[in-house]
Amino acid sequence: MDQYNITLNPKDMPDAWYNINADMPEPMAPPLHPGTMKPVGPDDLSAIFPMGLIQQEMSADPMISIPGEVMDKYRLWRSTPLRRAYRLEKALNTPAKIYYKNESVCPGGSHKINTAIAQAYYNKAEGTTEITTETGAGQWGSALSIACSMLGMKCTVYMVRVSYDHKPYRRVLMQTYGGNVIPSPSPTTNSGRAFLAADPDTTGSLGMAISEAVEVAATSGGKIKYSLGSVLNHVLLHQTIIGLEAKKQMESVGAYPDVVIACCGGGSNFGGIAFPFAHDKLRKGKKIDFIAVEPAACPSLTRGIYAYDFGDTGKLTPLLMQYTLGHDFVPSGIHAGGLRYHGVASQLALLVKKGVMRAVAYKQNPVFEAAVMFAKAEGIIPAPETSHAIRAAIDEAIKCRESGEAKTILFNLSGHGHFDMMAYDAYNSGQLVDLELDEKALEAAEAAIPKVTAPA
Amino acid sequence: MDQYNITLNPKDMPDAWYNINADMPEPMAPPLHPGTMKPVGPDDLSAIFPMGLIQQEMSADPMISIPGEVMDKYRLWRSTPLRRAYRLEKALNTPAKIYYKNESVCPGGSHKINTAIAQAYYNKAEGTTEITTETGAGQWGSALSIACSMLGMKCTVYMVRVSYDHKPYRRVLMQTYGGNVIPSPSPTTNSGRAFLAADPDTTGSLGMAISEAVEVAATSGGKIKYSLGSVLNHVLLHQTIIGLEAKKQMESVGAYPDVVIACCGGGSNFGGIAFPFAHDKLRKGKKIDFIAVEPAACPSLTRGIYAYDFGDTGKLTPLLMQYTLGHDFVPSGIHAGGLRYHGVASQLALLVKKGVMRAVAYKQNPVFEAAVMFAKAEGIIPAPETSHAIRAAIDEAIKCRESGEAKTILFNLSGHGHFDMMAYDAYNSGQLVDLELDEKALEAAEAAIPKVTAPA
Repeated sequence: MDQYNITLNPKDMPDAWYNINADMPEPMAPPLHPGTMKPVGPDDLSAIFPMGLIQQEMSADPMISIPGEVMDKYRLWRSTPLRRAYRLEKALNTPAKIYYKNESVCPGGSHKINTAIAQAYYNKAEGTTEITTETGAGQWGSALSIACSMLGMKCTVYMVRVSYDHKPYRRVLMQTYGGNVIPSPSPTTNSGRAFLAADPDTTGSLGMAISEAVEVAATSGGKIKYSLGSVLNHVLLHQTIIGLEAKKQMESVGAYPDVVIACCGGGSNFGGIAFPFAHDKLRKGKKIDFIAVEPAACPSLTRGIYAYDFGDTGKLTPLLMQYTLGHDFVPSGIHAGGLRYHGVASQLALLVKKGVMRAVAYKQNPVFEAAVMFAKAEGIIPAPETSHAIRAAIDEAIKCRESGEAKTILFNLSGHGHFDMMAYDAYNSGQLVDLELDEKALEAAEAAIPKVTAPA
Repeated sequence: MDQYNITLNPKDMPDAWYNINADMPEPMAPPLHPGTMKPVGPDDLSAIFPMGLIQQEMSADPMISIPGEVMDKYRLWRSTPLRRAYRLEKALNTPAKIYYKNESVCPGGSHKINTAIAQAYYNKAEGTTEITTETGAGQWGSALSIACSMLGMKCTVYMVRVSYDHKPYRRVLMQTYGGNVIPSPSPTTNSGRAFLAADPDTTGSLGMAISEAVEVAATSGGKIKYSLGSVLNHVLLHQTIIGLEAKKQMESVGAYPDVVIACCGGGSNFGGIAFPFAHDKLRKGKKIDFIAVEPAACPSLTRGIYAYDFGDTGKLTPLLMQYTLGHDFVPSGIHAGGLRYHGVASQLALLVKKGVMRAVAYKQNPVFEAAVMFAKAEGIIPAPETSHAIRAAIDEAIKCRESGEAKTILFNLSGHGHFDMMAYDAYNSGQLVDLELDEKALEAAEAAIPKVTAPA
């Protein structure tokens, strides 16, 4: 059977998102207010988020209907193809069957648009006309710029300075869709000015950029809202469209995964493909190995502390229970800018803590080695972030070659690397450095994690 | 009916290419040998091309089977989606129905891989292990690098210097797939040294880069072959897979085009989508308006002379009957580098001369205006070359709005613009110049066209 390109009949497209809150093995620790350290209610969040998203954040409904206007936009790029990596399997000489969900065909080049369009929709529905956000590598900022353009809204993006300087194509992409792009930290906000005063030469970080974008929203008198591209439950919720489609597509060819793999920064791409399958593990006892793949230079799940921590460097966001490297940890300047985040989604953190899922970490060179192997086999240049997942998928397939097991491996090809070619240039020319975890910075950052325990 | 994404069942994929030679309204003027000015035979071409491709070049068979190994590679990206541009139609408030064939999802980001893989295959089948070629914007060089990588062959690409300097991401893409990329003109060939002696600061041109690549093949003693990304019949033949798929896809939703549009450099993308429909016009009297869209700065079809001319600046290639601006015409440095070619495919030239097809030309700013409108409506950033087709499609749709006609318009979205973001930056910031046709250069180049008449 030809499984190169497994499509979904438009009438079979999922029309509801899957909410992992309904299936968690124990109750979630509530988010805490950054000032009072008491659990936040919907009203606390309404300064920066629309009520539609706050309700999703706290919902325990197992399935949440996708509004018609969001479905209409989804049809522009969804369903995305599920592909069998025949040529990669052959190159690896493995009995494993490798499938990947190709989100790189989404507008903006990654899965991020799946939540961007939903978030823009819920904001617009409550009368908001302008949204701020942060972006690291630029995938999220691109997605939100496109979504706002499609819905006729304004979008301001605080872009981590190291990415702003090194990835002008990403900046131009956002600007082409009307996005207003500001390098972060910037002199346009109080938090930005403070970060610059502390270190005028800082490369910036997602944590700093979040502070700036949140500040703009929080001080706008309700006129401007803030949008986050990962970490929060409503973001992971919107991304479950990936896994829901993948399930149907695999079913259509009689396949089911033994292993599900995705890279992991804040967790939206990982949660997006993994959570719909996690339902089968949590509720039906299916045996599935879930692997979240992170960079060795920013290993929240494999080296972080399980604790309450802020989502941003400026301590403006609610505290979430999570695995964290510390809210002021500034990771080394690896090319996978989208994975340079100190924390991770609460739901994912708890599932890892409970052993339902696991995490691995890789350095840059083995990741790019996998990326080039994949590009040559499958014809697609993957993003540096995505290449972490590819490395893990290849390693699982190699284990199968050694053990003789014909496992079915599914990974999320979350984005293409067309705006990351300078990283490939560094790898091709042998100039790519295997940046280590900055142990001293980690020690200091971990010490700054607030000592807060979950309310009874 | 949902026509956002019209796919083709794998079992319905075309397994033969369409050869327009079988349907031409009059016999083609034969290619002439550059030394003797007599018609060339297969043996004359065998120094640089494999016999499998030479046979296709001269074949009059209406359909030519696609070899199994090529079909197998095609399945990695084909069939490509046919999409109805609902959102663009709405933005234009037009009664026209606009469809586009999305070749931007092909490996390398354009349709070029369709012939690259076929050419690499026929070369390999005759024992060749190394291929040289030229590239302008980089789409063709990328495609051949990928194809050679997939078939385990070496690839050397002479890249027009202005593109080499301005598009480092394209260079890196080729190198990632193992391509050896040399800026042209270069000191590595006799022709390159001559071009540099005449003008050390030349931006280069496709005509010069072709001379260098052909020279390398012709002087290799048969070890290295040359591959051309457009112009020749076998190239257009391989690209007809685009139009053949589009026909089946439109048929599946009960549609048929009144207008078929593509941008036109050498003609492979235009011929690829148009020729299978031209068959219906030539053989069945179907009324279809075919529009080839070229840049005003390099208008072969709308301003060129219908005459025999060389394919390259160094006069190493056979002479083809065509519309030409002169083999040593160096067009202004427009961003659509893939359209900076002085001539056009013979078959296309004759069909335009006979009135079966027509051509229009646009300047850069209206082209980029169309590109941004398309990106905002459909979510895809088109290549500058492709944007010429989009401009024409939009203008046809606007005419429909004015006349009230609900025409069905089909265009080829030949490639994405992810490696052309600096062109968008120039447009966004109002810095893009509407480069004019260099009339003096044209006058001189036209004077240098050899005075050769077709043999009786």
